[in-house]
Amino acid sequence: MSRGRATVRDVADATGVSIATVSRVLNQAGAVAPETRQLVEQAIEDLGLRAPAPRGGTAKPVEGAVYLRCPYVLTDYFGLIVSSIAETLDRHGRQLVLNAGEAAQHERVLGRLPAQREVGGAILILPPEPSEDLVRLSTRRFPFVVVDPRTRLPRDIPSVSAAHHSGARQLTSYLTSLGHRRIGVIAGPREWLAADARLSGHSAALADAGILPDPSLVRHDQPTTAHGYRAAGSLLDLDPRPTALVAFNDKAAIGALQAAAERGLSVPGDLSIAGFDDLDLSRATTPQLTTVRQPLQEMGRMAVSLLIRLLERHELEALHIELATELIVRGSTGRVSSPI
Amino acid sequence: MSRGRATVRDVADATGVSIATVSRVLNQAGAVAPETRQLVEQAIEDLGLRAPAPRGGTAKPVEGAVYLRCPYVLTDYFGLIVSSIAETLDRHGRQLVLNAGEAAQHERVLGRLPAQREVGGAILILPPEPSEDLVRLSTRRFPFVVVDPRTRLPRDIPSVSAAHHSGARQLTSYLTSLGHRRIGVIAGPREWLAADARLSGHSAALADAGILPDPSLVRHDQPTTAHGYRAAGSLLDLDPRPTALVAFNDKAAIGALQAAAERGLSVPGDLSIAGFDDLDLSRATTPQLTTVRQPLQEMGRMAVSLLIRLLERHELEALHIELATELIVRGSTGRVSSPI
Repeated sequence: MSRGRATVRDVADATGVSIATVSRVLNQAGAVAPETRQLVEQAIEDLGLRAPAPRGGTAKPVEGAVYLRCPYVLTDYFGLIVSSIAETLDRHGRQLVLNAGEAAQHERVLGRLPAQREVGGAILILPPEPSEDLVRLSTRRFPFVVVDPRTRLPRDIPSVSAAHHSGARQLTSYLTSLGHRRIGVIAGPREWLAADARLSGHSAALADAGILPDPSLVRHDQPTTAHGYRAAGSLLDLDPRPTALVAFNDKAAIGALQAAAERGLSVPGDLSIAGFDDLDLSRATTPQLTTVRQPLQEMGRMAVSLLIRLLERHELEALHIELATELIVRGSTGRVSSPI
Repeated sequence: MSRGRATVRDVADATGVSIATVSRVLNQAGAVAPETRQLVEQAIEDLGLRAPAPRGGTAKPVEGAVYLRCPYVLTDYFGLIVSSIAETLDRHGRQLVLNAGEAAQHERVLGRLPAQREVGGAILILPPEPSEDLVRLSTRRFPFVVVDPRTRLPRDIPSVSAAHHSGARQLTSYLTSLGHRRIGVIAGPREWLAADARLSGHSAALADAGILPDPSLVRHDQPTTAHGYRAAGSLLDLDPRPTALVAFNDKAAIGALQAAAERGLSVPGDLSIAGFDDLDLSRATTPQLTTVRQPLQEMGRMAVSLLIRLLERHELEALHIELATELIVRGSTGRVSSPI
């Protein structure tokens, strides 16, 4: 009472209802007659106190809480992953402790995680933490899973990502099947795992069509509309001009559409443009973007499923899991007009 | 040890380092010589145990955790609000327990919140919970704040929302200043507070220009691209045709752009189109959308600030807070071509 909170017994005493029934009302668990429920709730209000904590129980869900770190703003891409993790954890009865947003990039928390008694495991979207911190966490046997890793992880750290290589390969194969042989690439930063794997998928598809990859057709930078616009401009100024541009990110593809429009190039008549991710954005443009759908929600579900298995002390056989992507053909790509 | 977790003392004993120093290493707080840190970390690894919980302390951040409910997928709109809440709570040293995603729509949790000992307060994005549950939560003196309420709240429940009325009024004033007098409206569901407030702002701006609102120019439905497309189609089939369409949501405005393109109407030459929200989407279209920016991140920050004051048992003077919106003029609106 001194802590401003009634006990279950206080409420039971005030109502003449059993402690078990008060608990059932508080937990909204089990059948309680409506009048009894009302009586109990009225008593709590009359006592002018915050509801009592039910006996035992409540510490439990938090003891098994899962810590999720996403050092980015939750927009269409990371927001979908985080939503799916939240929904799936909820289905497993696990509470989610979230550390998200750009501010999270300036903190190092991995070292503190094992000491947090109420957190049972973690799902991490990286960076910013250096990989030696990950290794240390792993050595301490703290259960965690990495989602969508940006850089290559040590072999024994479980991770879930999209099949970057095969997604890009499928996209470029589709473009070569339309007759494109000179394809500009707007890629992410060179050190990103995804950029590297997608470029290798692109090169593999070119090789399948008997085309040698040309490094002068590749630009590396941040996945933004501004970068896409700049990179597309520099690619479109080449002579001969590429007949298609592949951006490894829908936002960059939108920048490429803008660069094409400024040069009076019609899409897909004069130039095919394709993106990657299948964000909502890709359906907002005219024409709508051909793109590669990333299984963002499935990545979230799979991360939870791996973590739950770790928490239940099962062995994981496959530690690095790749989920299939899907080519989505829309209006921004078409047959090459004047094959070179 | 039987719980599979070393105590601070076990580590201290194994290393000969003081308990205080072991705690500093675990908490990454205070200066510890690198060799000592390594010694302690090595001992934890050698013991083959999860790191011990530091003495006392750790229960604290969770006792004051804030529960956040967002029964929607975290895309550009809600994702920005949630990111900003996460960042701001973090700055206050409060842990965030998140319940998000569409699955959350099927649960009623408000009744259980006061019983969760580790949760100090809540920030709620609504629905689904019925408002009598909110009132009950309030009567129990459980501290909470509602963000972006969909329906009118009881007077004493603190909330943060955007200034819907003045945002819509500013937008329509801008359109009448360009000579538009016949303006179609693609609004959200009739029962939504935001739709009602925006419509009233629209009507006020029309009245300022000496124009009577015409109910036949208003369509109500869900804020989706499909709805915007359908509603715009039905408005553009009217005779005389509206010279401008205002959608109370960017996604609906994108549907309107598609309906205009199908009818061979050029935007803004033949028809002006404006949205609401200023999502990333609004800059992906050609022309880019004129829209009203909602202060989503500021809403998140303000919600946290109100909640912290409630948790510190300050009285709040203003309970319903509206944050200013901003008119963003881009290429999709222009002077009326043939005033009626």
